[in-house]
Amino acid sequence: MQNPIKKLAVLTSGGDSPGMNAAVRAVVRTCAFMEIECMAIYRGYEGMIEGDFVPFNARSVNNIINKGGTILKSARCEEFRTPEGRQKAYDQLKAAGIDCFVVIGGDGSFRGASIFYKEFGIPVIGIPGTIDNDIFGTQFTLGFDTALNTVVEAIDKIRDTASSHSRLFFVEVMGRDVGHIALNAGVAAGAEETLIPEQNLGLERLLDSLKRSKKSGKSSSIVVVAEGDKTGKNVFELKEYVEKNLPIYDVRVSVLGHIQRGGSPTAFDRVLASRMGVKAVESLLEGKANLMVGIVANEMVLTPIDDAVKGHTKIDRELIRVSDIMTI
Amino acid sequence: MQNPIKKLAVLTSGGDSPGMNAAVRAVVRTCAFMEIECMAIYRGYEGMIEGDFVPFNARSVNNIINKGGTILKSARCEEFRTPEGRQKAYDQLKAAGIDCFVVIGGDGSFRGASIFYKEFGIPVIGIPGTIDNDIFGTQFTLGFDTALNTVVEAIDKIRDTASSHSRLFFVEVMGRDVGHIALNAGVAAGAEETLIPEQNLGLERLLDSLKRSKKSGKSSSIVVVAEGDKTGKNVFELKEYVEKNLPIYDVRVSVLGHIQRGGSPTAFDRVLASRMGVKAVESLLEGKANLMVGIVANEMVLTPIDDAVKGHTKIDRELIRVSDIMTI
Amino acid sequence: MQNPIKKLAVLTSGGDSPGMNAAVRAVVRTCAFMEIECMAIYRGYEGMIEGDFVPFNARSVNNIINKGGTILKSARCEEFRTPEGRQKAYDQLKAAGIDCFVVIGGDGSFRGASIFYKEFGIPVIGIPGTIDNDIFGTQFTLGFDTALNTVVEAIDKIRDTASSHSRLFFVEVMGRDVGHIALNAGVAAGAEETLIPEQNLGLERLLDSLKRSKKSGKSSSIVVVAEGDKTGKNVFELKEYVEKNLPIYDVRVSVLGHIQRGGSPTAFDRVLASRMGVKAVESLLEGKANLMVGIVANEMVLTPIDDAVKGHTKIDRELIRVSDIMTI
Amino acid sequence: MQNPIKKLAVLTSGGDSPGMNAAVRAVVRTCAFMEIECMAIYRGYEGMIEGDFVPFNARSVNNIINKGGTILKSARCEEFRTPEGRQKAYDQLKAAGIDCFVVIGGDGSFRGASIFYKEFGIPVIGIPGTIDNDIFGTQFTLGFDTALNTVVEAIDKIRDTASSHSRLFFVEVMGRDVGHIALNAGVAAGAEETLIPEQNLGLERLLDSLKRSKKSGKSSSIVVVAEGDKTGKNVFELKEYVEKNLPIYDVRVSVLGHIQRGGSPTAFDRVLASRMGVKAVESLLEGKANLMVGIVANEMVLTPIDDAVKGHTKIDRELIRVSDIMTI
Repeated sequence: MQNPIKKLAVLTSGGDSPGMNAAVRAVVRTCAFMEIECMAIYRGYEGMIEGDFVPFNARSVNNIINKGGTILKSARCEEFRTPEGRQKAYDQLKAAGIDCFVVIGGDGSFRGASIFYKEFGIPVIGIPGTIDNDIFGTQFTLGFDTALNTVVEAIDKIRDTASSHSRLFFVEVMGRDVGHIALNAGVAAGAEETLIPEQNLGLERLLDSLKRSKKSGKSSSIVVVAEGDKTGKNVFELKEYVEKNLPIYDVRVSVLGHIQRGGSPTAFDRVLASRMGVKAVESLLEGKANLMVGIVANEMVLTPIDDAVKGHTKIDRELIRVSDIMTI
Repeated sequence: MQNPIKKLAVLTSGGDSPGMNAAVRAVVRTCAFMEIECMAIYRGYEGMIEGDFVPFNARSVNNIINKGGTILKSARCEEFRTPEGRQKAYDQLKAAGIDCFVVIGGDGSFRGASIFYKEFGIPVIGIPGTIDNDIFGTQFTLGFDTALNTVVEAIDKIRDTASSHSRLFFVEVMGRDVGHIALNAGVAAGAEETLIPEQNLGLERLLDSLKRSKKSGKSSSIVVVAEGDKTGKNVFELKEYVEKNLPIYDVRVSVLGHIQRGGSPTAFDRVLASRMGVKAVESLLEGKANLMVGIVANEMVLTPIDDAVKGHTKIDRELIRVSDIMTI
Repeated sequence: MQNPIKKLAVLTSGGDSPGMNAAVRAVVRTCAFMEIECMAIYRGYEGMIEGDFVPFNARSVNNIINKGGTILKSARCEEFRTPEGRQKAYDQLKAAGIDCFVVIGGDGSFRGASIFYKEFGIPVIGIPGTIDNDIFGTQFTLGFDTALNTVVEAIDKIRDTASSHSRLFFVEVMGRDVGHIALNAGVAAGAEETLIPEQNLGLERLLDSLKRSKKSGKSSSIVVVAEGDKTGKNVFELKEYVEKNLPIYDVRVSVLGHIQRGGSPTAFDRVLASRMGVKAVESLLEGKANLMVGIVANEMVLTPIDDAVKGHTKIDRELIRVSDIMTI
Repeated sequence: MQNPIKKLAVLTSGGDSPGMNAAVRAVVRTCAFMEIECMAIYRGYEGMIEGDFVPFNARSVNNIINKGGTILKSARCEEFRTPEGRQKAYDQLKAAGIDCFVVIGGDGSFRGASIFYKEFGIPVIGIPGTIDNDIFGTQFTLGFDTALNTVVEAIDKIRDTASSHSRLFFVEVMGRDVGHIALNAGVAAGAEETLIPEQNLGLERLLDSLKRSKKSGKSSSIVVVAEGDKTGKNVFELKEYVEKNLPIYDVRVSVLGHIQRGGSPTAFDRVLASRMGVKAVESLLEGKANLMVGIVANEMVLTPIDDAVKGHTKIDRELIRVSDIMTI
């Protein structure tokens, strides 16, 4: 087969997630292996518009597989949402002789890529890099496993002090629209209750659960709360609510925040990134475009980007049930 | 449906693995949730033969989800391999009113469970607890993810010193019959080469790869070696071989050993253990027996124990290819 | 010498800190070694008033050296501040035949111990267990090193994402009255600026420093803020202030909170706890009382409790200078 | 005062240790702060002889404070032991206009520096970078705290599996001539016994201790062995010896090896490195030479290099006693 692709670019876009560097490395090295040129685009679509390109070879990505963040930097780019911005980006790619690109990011980044593809026909493959695990077409997004472990290690520490003082903690974790981190962390850290955007069982149930927990002799309680939970109260308001309605508890709050985005990626995320990077480049070389690489049943699969951004991976009902049983 | 099961037992058996405690907790709490009695059997089949049983309730397993090892202790038991030993075990279970049990362990433990089931008809469900990921019927065994991360963190440290001195390291990891830890760790830690039991590409290829690596300007190299690799040389002999045939390298050896078995389980292993524990108890309550719980495509599945112990999960050919590409 | 002490008690009191369990273990085992009885008092002075005592032997403290929190639980106790409360406590100790005790806690706990000693003559030795490092008479309090490492690891993660997005982060760490955690963490994590209670250089300087930092080409900035800093603004207000006055920065806030109190103690804290526990018991056996064990110049020293609670360890001026130089 | 120093160089030499990068950063930034030029010398004395110099400014050392190993690379250099080699080194320094230098390394590196100073009068200040803590004139060498924590975390993992199987482990740690890592790790990890070069209590005592341990009901035992212990047996021979003479134990061996040299430095080592780097540069600017920076009683102190290399920091007798008491 004649391979029309001579030069491939890679960028990271949107919120960063652990494993992005490992994915960049995989893309760059697969290009080297396939003997095509590779360009790194810095600062996401902003860098694409400004032509912030650097040629990368296999050695350019030495010793980054275990680094958090992204060496290519990332940014959210308003200008790429405009036709003028995208035209500039296209001109820059053409001027640099770039035939196609791999974008590592979340649904916002994918939407931009898809529009750009439809407008200019530049083949693009997406790699889902986001800690939220909220992309349709993959059972795991890049960074989810690392973020989950960061959360669980943090709650393990909080439990030490919670147990020592017989306290109740509300721990806020990331997840505006989906509760994957919260639900999995709740199960893994042995939380008493987990509040997620996908279901709102009401504040009454929370009080009941906490009452039962105290009665059963538990010495401390952790309630994991996703940012986007549907009780209508944030963690500080939940604290007040419980203190008022259930004064048997000494309540504290912890907002884990941005530590969840950083850190050296776990083995799982590094392997996943490596596999996705290879698959992304190979797919472009096979003439595919406007698709996202995902992992389903431990296999690499491709999903149209337009489908990927349409919905979220559903929360696992079985895991909700496991969570309920474990808190007895 | 009438539920004939009133009392369920749980034991850990064979080599320990991280996540066993989380699985014990899940079994115990599911029993509490289902309102059936639960007995803990200490020291594996040895404790079964000796009647080393302790009643456990939901609070007996507080604060163990994050602990490595197994609070129930584990042992390899010769006596259980004899009909007399198994008869004693059966008598003890009957005397204690135990109707069925969950065994958390590896293939040796499962073989014993299956024979016991065929002889005495005591329903048993297995949970695959072993770091080697070598059980058929599940994509991940309990403890594999934790062991893999332990290995990768260790190699990250070794790389620091390897890079500082431009050295070559042979790092031996666990895996007598299968190379899952070695292959995944090799990819995740950015190893130059990985030697696994499933394929023997010969020592020539190793030398070629190391020569190419040096030439390409890499400042250090890590070769991950599974215990059961098929080169016919252990890590110390590999060191000598390379020093003799490729004297450009300053070579060191590291045998990671038993640190791979311990440590607080990762989030993945804790969630997996919780799901498997629930599934195991529910399966027994549904009248099922002589099956192993596994995870396939992120779903809980059941496999006949006799099938589970017959083979290993095959090494992933795609991952071998990814590994090859990454070392360019 | 005739040893009048037959029974010694140990309690943890006030806020918990990592290493408390290691200190409890050391006290208990030293008693066993010296062949005197040891009683554990649960829940601090509250448990003392209520007679919540349990005899401990060398095996009672197996496998706790690496656990965060305190297995004896801790509490702040209002009743012990009253003469009636202390009388009850005395009666309980007498009834249980307890001759003396070791209290592991902070300055509040020590003040109570000293009053109690003066009223009832029960010999007491204090072990400074607090993450804040704010006790006079010791260069390091128990838990400080662990908390410091927890903070630094958290900031390392935050820096990953800060660098990827060229952001400025205000990170709030514990320290109401003293800035030891903040200053040391600032140096160790490479912070741009550190705001501590001991000095207020004003908001102008902060802006200057941030302007200089941006100009010098730094891609991200971390400002570590002790809870008790003297700018008059908390981290959220600092964010607003900088966004308004220095709009070149994209600013984020992270409040580390209670993760700083938990976690497995570092090697340093475990060794320190072991040494302090031995010294505390030996001092009581030598007839000493109302003293605190400390570490100065890597040696165990004793300081009158009344002196220990009077002041704080001063912030290290040389380290402030090091901090200033490093941020160039 | 007139400052004759215009250009300062920094190198790392000998075995690497965690914190070296933090020290390099501190030296470079202090030069920038003092407005003198700074040159990095790569690959230790080898690079000095070959003129492998690169000018470094404050930004050259961004984001290295948390990295293990040394970005300047290190090496042991035979040629620098010869007068000819040192002459070449001197010529290179002169050619590059380097007035003085800071060497970060162990006693071998310091001996070379001292000879060089006496021959050519180039002022040098040493920073003790070695995990062994075996340099006279400082209570802590750079990297010791990190290595100690790595060892303790590894033994914590080993204990998980040791306890699960009631096994005895011999764990070999670094320390050819001194037992600081072994003794501190033994105390911090709760080892049953610690074998160090500084004292040989004989194999009989080991057997007695292990017998007593089993009798007292301990479920597992860890014996920490420094490489240079004086029993005349290595860990594998110790295993055989105990298996033969005390067959009640199931014995395993773990050699921790090179993981002890790597890893992100602890907060303690990063702060220590920063302080030492500042002190080293300031001392050179004050006209001092042939001295080593150390930390004593938490203060920066200077010791003649010739004294520093003469002896080791003595093992702490009090800590040996603490170790003995804790193993009851």
